[in-house]
Amino acid sequence: MATTTDTIRNGVDTAQLYGTLDAIKADPSIAKFQFRARNRWIEGAHNRSTIRDFYAANQEDTSRTQEFVLDAGEPAILLGTDTGPNPAEYLLHALAACLTTSLVYVAAARGVHLTEVESTLAGDMDVEGALGLSDEYRNGFEHIRVSFRVKGDAPEEKLREVVARAQQRSAVFDMVANGVPVTVDVATP
Amino acid sequence: MATTTDTIRNGVDTAQLYGTLDAIKADPSIAKFQFRARNRWIEGAHNRSTIRDFYAANQEDTSRTQEFVLDAGEPAILLGTDTGPNPAEYLLHALAACLTTSLVYVAAARGVHLTEVESTLAGDMDVEGALGLSDEYRNGFEHIRVSFRVKGDAPEEKLREVVARAQQRSAVFDMVANGVPVTVDVATP
Repeated sequence: MATTTDTIRNGVDTAQLYGTLDAIKADPSIAKFQFRARNRWIEGAHNRSTIRDFYAANQEDTSRTQEFVLDAGEPAILLGTDTGPNPAEYLLHALAACLTTSLVYVAAARGVHLTEVESTLAGDMDVEGALGLSDEYRNGFEHIRVSFRVKGDAPEEKLREVVARAQQRSAVFDMVANGVPVTVDVATP
Repeated sequence: MATTTDTIRNGVDTAQLYGTLDAIKADPSIAKFQFRARNRWIEGAHNRSTIRDFYAANQEDTSRTQEFVLDAGEPAILLGTDTGPNPAEYLLHALAACLTTSLVYVAAARGVHLTEVESTLAGDMDVEGALGLSDEYRNGFEHIRVSFRVKGDAPEEKLREVVARAQQRSAVFDMVANGVPVTVDVATP
């Protein structure tokens, strides 16, 4: 007979996971989410986002007790004062975090106990693009390489399947690899 | 005659900006950058990236005196404990930060003094995609809306031109709007 602790795997409550999946199957309208960020320029390359509210399950979320504050910046060579990671580095973090969480959830669902998940990410960029000096280079990374190191209680083949499935289902991997339609509106009050 | 303070606009040293552009024109090899992130899983949806080293101007950067630490998480409804913004929210922040910095740099180069730059971002997602419940939905955001509010000492038309140029040159806007090739390697030691 299952006990409460049996349902926790990799820190994920699999009973809650399956309950969520069943609830969405019963009422797909609860699967519509909207995530948000607000950003304010401070000075030079220093700007700050605050993140808290989001929409999910047909209502505004009220569960978060605090807002998250994220400071961005640039290093000296890109005219900043290192007030935070730069935006491209934040994108690498978003990608690493999403692949890792997807991997941990997939492993939990498949009965794989993980003991270690680490990744290193690298993105190559020729800044002649973003600086407007050459049309030969795009503005963003030409390529991103992600290297995972995964340990757990499953055979190598199963661990690799878990990573592959995570890549197939990661929200940020999908967005970074395939792109997203973005519209930009401007008010100049 | 220009004084030192005259070269600082919007917190950006325009003399350094033009110096950087001239240096790259003289030796384009210094424009090759590589940015990096390292991520480690902690528990459940909680993982942490550290960001510090990068490659630029034909060498490893040594200017950063500290590493940046970023914690990711998920809210309760997505099986986490709010240990940080979730990965998709980090992507919105990366996009907001890059558009804002691009806008501030473009304005500095064009002689526009900004007094306020704020933005709100929203991304819509049906989580049936990422949860593997339906192939009708992609994993990531279906669409991202960015709304800027920009004030400065230039006519509305010029402010709008600055935003449009920033969008054309933003590294993260390019990546999010157009996608980037990503390769994922796995070691299972």
